[in-house]
Amino acid sequence: MTSIHPTVLISPKARIGEECNIGPYTIIHDNVVLGRNVVIGSHCEIGISTRLGDGSPLYIGDNSLIRSHSVFYESSSFGDCLVTGHHVCARELTHAGKGLQIGSASDIQGHCEIGDYVRTHRGVHIGQKSKIGNFVWLYPDVLLTNDPNPPSENINFIGAEVGDFTVISAKSTLLPGVKLGKHVLVAAQSLVGINVPDKKLVTGVPAKIVGEASMLRMKNDIRVRAYPWNKRFYRGYPEEIICQWREEE
Amino acid sequence: MTSIHPTVLISPKARIGEECNIGPYTIIHDNVVLGRNVVIGSHCEIGISTRLGDGSPLYIGDNSLIRSHSVFYESSSFGDCLVTGHHVCARELTHAGKGLQIGSASDIQGHCEIGDYVRTHRGVHIGQKSKIGNFVWLYPDVLLTNDPNPPSENINFIGAEVGDFTVISAKSTLLPGVKLGKHVLVAAQSLVGINVPDKKLVTGVPAKIVGEASMLRMKNDIRVRAYPWNKRFYRGYPEEIICQWREEE
Amino acid sequence: MTSIHPTVLISPKARIGEECNIGPYTIIHDNVVLGRNVVIGSHCEIGISTRLGDGSPLYIGDNSLIRSHSVFYESSSFGDCLVTGHHVCARELTHAGKGLQIGSASDIQGHCEIGDYVRTHRGVHIGQKSKIGNFVWLYPDVLLTNDPNPPSENINFIGAEVGDFTVISAKSTLLPGVKLGKHVLVAAQSLVGINVPDKKLVTGVPAKIVGEASMLRMKNDIRVRAYPWNKRFYRGYPEEIICQWREEE
Repeated sequence: MTSIHPTVLISPKARIGEECNIGPYTIIHDNVVLGRNVVIGSHCEIGISTRLGDGSPLYIGDNSLIRSHSVFYESSSFGDCLVTGHHVCARELTHAGKGLQIGSASDIQGHCEIGDYVRTHRGVHIGQKSKIGNFVWLYPDVLLTNDPNPPSENINFIGAEVGDFTVISAKSTLLPGVKLGKHVLVAAQSLVGINVPDKKLVTGVPAKIVGEASMLRMKNDIRVRAYPWNKRFYRGYPEEIICQWREEE
Repeated sequence: MTSIHPTVLISPKARIGEECNIGPYTIIHDNVVLGRNVVIGSHCEIGISTRLGDGSPLYIGDNSLIRSHSVFYESSSFGDCLVTGHHVCARELTHAGKGLQIGSASDIQGHCEIGDYVRTHRGVHIGQKSKIGNFVWLYPDVLLTNDPNPPSENINFIGAEVGDFTVISAKSTLLPGVKLGKHVLVAAQSLVGINVPDKKLVTGVPAKIVGEASMLRMKNDIRVRAYPWNKRFYRGYPEEIICQWREEE
Repeated sequence: MTSIHPTVLISPKARIGEECNIGPYTIIHDNVVLGRNVVIGSHCEIGISTRLGDGSPLYIGDNSLIRSHSVFYESSSFGDCLVTGHHVCARELTHAGKGLQIGSASDIQGHCEIGDYVRTHRGVHIGQKSKIGNFVWLYPDVLLTNDPNPPSENINFIGAEVGDFTVISAKSTLLPGVKLGKHVLVAAQSLVGINVPDKKLVTGVPAKIVGEASMLRMKNDIRVRAYPWNKRFYRGYPEEIICQWREEE
């Protein structure tokens, strides 16, 4: 049964799926489509209108959870099973696949593409024109920039591109237009200004390629290679995806 | 016509200009003066009283926009055309000129001076006793510190000083008391512990002067010098200022 | 007299001490125990339930102040005189002593231990399994990580440990499992991947031990050693603690 707290300010134009639950003091604007079984916490503002959008609604897929104090603009879409922390902001023209997790206090600046099963930790900032693949991990305070000559016109922004399965460790920065391949590992607090081929390990300020990610062993069992991580870590992914990963071995 | 949502908790002592628009669940305290045509989003708390102030009101100039979930203290003043993102915090004794833009999740710790047309991006932290000139750009996660011997008494804090037109790129830190001249460019993720003369380019951890900012060319057209940026970027500045910049050429 | 704003949504199961003051649009869930004279600002959500907790309540000690837009989960405890900034998030199974200060927009990820009189500045992130001693200072944007092989299972997280009186300057990162002794000083924007003995000064990316913290002099009086800081800085600590520090001299 859908449950909407009496203090929710909800537009009659918003389309709310079955079994949704919307918390106190949250605002749902006109141009919003919520899937089935979406939970939205307290004090959120969902579907803010903006002339920077394309008129399309904010679409939130089934079985999603948006935690308190979060802000979403219209003209963005999120696949099923979106999960956010608190105090998140996501602007217009963000198009994300299934299973996106957004950590608390993260900021998605919109005008960007995000694949399936991407997970950002706390305080991540994804600049406009970023392109993020599938199964990517962005750790706390990771920043994807986009302005090659600050300040420059938005039309000249060049987003970073991050390949499937790539892991960017805490507090690292990608400079504008940087392209990371698949299964890349960026060490903590790196400043990445170069393109990085698949499976490489990069570290430093400025970041350099120092070897293969597959060199690294698990801290708690040095017989096990830590990367590619999807050979050893499965939590939260659908059964069919895990099976596929196993078959590829 | 002024529009105040019925859920706004507004002190009868607050002075609200004409044509203001205040969003749901926002709180306006006693010691607040809003200019004409000020828009305040939802879930804000405006004019929090503090014994650290000087008793003066929070003053917000005409044609300003404060986005949702933001917090402003009394005893601060912001010139016309203030624009903020979401989840912003600005403490007492912040005195800012016209056209200030504050990015989402930024924190202005108060007891500081900010000139005209300063633009901060997301997650910027401006420590107490900072002095920021006009037309300055602070990119995401830039931090202006102030404590030369942490922890020390506030009376011993020494703010950073940032000259007109200077650009501080993402994730850079200014150490206490650092003075940057005019038209300086700080590259991303730099740790600046030295004073920097006008027009220099600094980069690194710790940051060093590596040349003139004017060496750099536009990424999309290498015939064009990227700096001084106000010879090529005008978006959002008043006509008379742009004319002045052009005459100086 | 306890004062609860009429817009507060408060569970009848919550136990509220005498002389508490709860601000507008705040939510107090079931499993909450507030001590005497606790002040909670507007737009907070206090005591969010989670299956990741142990069923115990959120306990907030006497004379605490939680500022607006903050979020606390159940199954955590905070000693007397907790003070937070705005937009703070503290998850389950955080156990903190007396006098904790949490800066605005900081995030305590829970499953961690924090001693007495710890002070975090703005934007600090404390990862799960962190152990923080007494009288520790964490400056803006400090990050304590915990995942030695990202992504790995929570059971393999190894928190950082920070000894009594240690000071971690702005934007520094502690890598997983790093142990800092007592009275250590970490300089700004350092990336600490090594264990550090008592009283050392570390700096850099990656951080190295460069000497004794006691080498440093006060910027405003070079005759005075800056560290150990508790020989010269007493603001906000109880008289008996300051007396003890003086006797140790």
